[in-house]
Amino acid sequence: MADPRFFKAAGPFTLKGLAALIGAELCPGASADATFDDVAPLSAAGPRDLSFLDNKKYVEEFMTSRAGACIVEASAAESAPDGMELLISATPYQAYALAAQAYYPEPSFEPGVSPSASIDPSAHLPDDCLIEAGVVIGPDANIGAGCRIGANTFIDQAVVIGENTSIASGVYLSHCLIGARVLIHPGVCIGQRGFGFAMAASGHIKVPQLGRVIVEDDVEIGANSTIDRGSGPDTVIGAGSMIDNLVQIGHNVRLGRGCVLIAQSGVAGSSRLEEFAVVAAQSGVSGHLVIGKGAQIGAKSGVIRDVAPGEKVAGIPAVPVKEHFRQVATVKRLASRKGR
Amino acid sequence: MADPRFFKAAGPFTLKGLAALIGAELCPGASADATFDDVAPLSAAGPRDLSFLDNKKYVEEFMTSRAGACIVEASAAESAPDGMELLISATPYQAYALAAQAYYPEPSFEPGVSPSASIDPSAHLPDDCLIEAGVVIGPDANIGAGCRIGANTFIDQAVVIGENTSIASGVYLSHCLIGARVLIHPGVCIGQRGFGFAMAASGHIKVPQLGRVIVEDDVEIGANSTIDRGSGPDTVIGAGSMIDNLVQIGHNVRLGRGCVLIAQSGVAGSSRLEEFAVVAAQSGVSGHLVIGKGAQIGAKSGVIRDVAPGEKVAGIPAVPVKEHFRQVATVKRLASRKGR
Amino acid sequence: MADPRFFKAAGPFTLKGLAALIGAELCPGASADATFDDVAPLSAAGPRDLSFLDNKKYVEEFMTSRAGACIVEASAAESAPDGMELLISATPYQAYALAAQAYYPEPSFEPGVSPSASIDPSAHLPDDCLIEAGVVIGPDANIGAGCRIGANTFIDQAVVIGENTSIASGVYLSHCLIGARVLIHPGVCIGQRGFGFAMAASGHIKVPQLGRVIVEDDVEIGANSTIDRGSGPDTVIGAGSMIDNLVQIGHNVRLGRGCVLIAQSGVAGSSRLEEFAVVAAQSGVSGHLVIGKGAQIGAKSGVIRDVAPGEKVAGIPAVPVKEHFRQVATVKRLASRKGR
Repeated sequence: MADPRFFKAAGPFTLKGLAALIGAELCPGASADATFDDVAPLSAAGPRDLSFLDNKKYVEEFMTSRAGACIVEASAAESAPDGMELLISATPYQAYALAAQAYYPEPSFEPGVSPSASIDPSAHLPDDCLIEAGVVIGPDANIGAGCRIGANTFIDQAVVIGENTSIASGVYLSHCLIGARVLIHPGVCIGQRGFGFAMAASGHIKVPQLGRVIVEDDVEIGANSTIDRGSGPDTVIGAGSMIDNLVQIGHNVRLGRGCVLIAQSGVAGSSRLEEFAVVAAQSGVSGHLVIGKGAQIGAKSGVIRDVAPGEKVAGIPAVPVKEHFRQVATVKRLASRKGR
Repeated sequence: MADPRFFKAAGPFTLKGLAALIGAELCPGASADATFDDVAPLSAAGPRDLSFLDNKKYVEEFMTSRAGACIVEASAAESAPDGMELLISATPYQAYALAAQAYYPEPSFEPGVSPSASIDPSAHLPDDCLIEAGVVIGPDANIGAGCRIGANTFIDQAVVIGENTSIASGVYLSHCLIGARVLIHPGVCIGQRGFGFAMAASGHIKVPQLGRVIVEDDVEIGANSTIDRGSGPDTVIGAGSMIDNLVQIGHNVRLGRGCVLIAQSGVAGSSRLEEFAVVAAQSGVSGHLVIGKGAQIGAKSGVIRDVAPGEKVAGIPAVPVKEHFRQVATVKRLASRKGR
Repeated sequence: MADPRFFKAAGPFTLKGLAALIGAELCPGASADATFDDVAPLSAAGPRDLSFLDNKKYVEEFMTSRAGACIVEASAAESAPDGMELLISATPYQAYALAAQAYYPEPSFEPGVSPSASIDPSAHLPDDCLIEAGVVIGPDANIGAGCRIGANTFIDQAVVIGENTSIASGVYLSHCLIGARVLIHPGVCIGQRGFGFAMAASGHIKVPQLGRVIVEDDVEIGANSTIDRGSGPDTVIGAGSMIDNLVQIGHNVRLGRGCVLIAQSGVAGSSRLEEFAVVAAQSGVSGHLVIGKGAQIGAKSGVIRDVAPGEKVAGIPAVPVKEHFRQVATVKRLASRKGR
């Protein structure tokens, strides 16, 4: 069970209530009114817990689990241990995510403005926001209803923030328009000038960076990530994109809807990722490229050419993932040969 | 045009005024007194805008651009569309940078000290500085004239900052001497103890780090980058160096004048980069190396040997860039061979 | 000598006093009562300084050094220049670290709470702590005796911090239990929700992250590093582990005692590093792996399989380090062949 000092559980829920919440089916003969207190992984779950099976690798754990209830695909139902209640879903992990959200909803907050916050009188700030200690909000900033702004965060002049957005502590926002229901983790920096200058032996000459950052609705941005504003065009983070920690986004980058950028990856200036593209950890995308819809870039790769929609690439430089594995195997084989 | 909520344009300027500002020549018959309101890229520019052509790839855009005026090399003049005014420069991008700086000068600020700043009475702080909310300045710190210190930034005891330096929000400065006209982006950490310890099975033993960080004049340091202080010698960032976001500089590193370190790159302890060396994104330089003047390290490379002045290297481990491309091509060829 | 504006030396110490402090032996005939003022590297040390020789590469520097005293292995004693006092140790660098700690002890501090700190009345805060300006401490947080909390740091509700822990400026702590004598550098983010969601074309569905971060005693965490809380299990950083700057630790990662993670490295979710494992700079460890006790991962490597205790690996994907060198040599040779 989650540490009650940090988490407050909202259960119990009935089996039928859960089914409705997560869009799952009850099995014939299920105890629709049975209640369950909490969510837990198969190995840790007990009779009062709801769990899930999403991966065939864990079927054995499933078959011996003590979980009181479990979300599974229909095909797994016959393997369930005696007495386990089942919720049938075509997408058990998605269904589990919804159940876990019901058990552990985002904590609510008491609106208010800390006396130690510094808010410019020209800023727009609805009454139902929580502004924590040390927050600084500049002139003409426009904060949406229901926002929570964490301690010591800085919001520069004219920044716009949509409704129900949550910004953690120590965040920096300038030259940007942030959407609704966005989650920004601590230490994130958005809107500083991009890395634009004319190189010259007499001293590099800075090029003013005249664009903004547009963060669309439902985006999440991980701790200490950095997003530079555009140089003239805007930098755009598409709706529902998930950005992990320590990620770098250069000026003029455009992410489509639902992109996923995993920890310590980076996208260089003016590249465009179409919707649902995935960049795995510690990978880099060079500047001025197009990464197609649903393309996937393997971890620690370096992409220097456009990637077609749906294509999976890996390696430095990145090539189609099958070719990458062939390259790795070839080098391994050649290096191990007798009589090299 | 730049979003007026975030940017204030200073134009219009006359063609001859611009020529003087940026060191360009008017063409014979140019309308020296014609005025232009703004800067814009070729594709977006209109009749009231100044643009530039720096790269042959964009000649076609140039030939069809609606820009009222354009900075070009002399050789491109004959391709200009009818009615476009030309400013002739041997280095159009540098000239454009200067023009853009004239159109969008750094915003001025009203000096003053926020009532929520905490400034030690022994710190030296000229009247013409702007100290934003929540700034903390320690004993004996010495701030230069005309500095701007952003909200919630921490400046530790005895830190020295030169004139007209601009430090963003949420910055940490300790054990360092910062030059004049330096630009430090949000979340930067300078002067924390380096990663120095004697490894021991009974528990690693920390080695006191007794040096400083010297940041020379006109340096720019990107968001959330980290620069450790020296272990005994100093860590030095040479004048005019440009450091991008999320860059790591280890203890005792010395950068010469005008070095360029692109996003998420790192330089390990005691390495020295001579002037105008370039380290591309996500690359690493091992410890105790010398990277020669003007050397260039390709993106995502790992440098484990000295690099000669002017040399271009790439790969893990980094080799001369031609050899790197040959290696990549060789592996590709061998992996694709029939009958492997 | 260290800049007295930033460092305060505690010497002089007598030779015999030093020997006792660092567990070294005096040579027969040594001047046990001679005093030395400071520590310095061999090349910079003068007659009033203590230095050390730990690496045969520096024997020549040792033989011509002007250092008044030097910590050496017994075998090096006969090479010492005339007049140099010697302290004999089997582990000179460890001994030097202890001596340097004696000369430059951690600065003490005056306890107190800045008037601009915001401390929830329900938080437990001993009188001997120093709480700097702008610190925010949430409800039910529990701070240990002798802690120092730097300016503008945020400590969320119910966080527990052990005795004599030092937390720098601009740090974010939530959902975590921090041990004693921990050192957390500026900009570190600990305890934010991990990168957990069910991918779905209709929009990714976030999975509540219900674990904590446990940071055991004597850990050091470098500037701007990020450690996500567990998804259900905890994320654990073992006692005495040393984490450098800009390191990413994913949810559910478990580090054993004394692990070393060098700058810009990352460990993905649910991987486990056994005690004294080392991950060099810019390397990544994929999720759900086990890295054995004392294993070493070379710089810029990508680990996608378990690593056995004591094994040294390198490369992308990482292989045993000898095989890696063979692979690098093979590619080099094949790429340079005449008549390819």
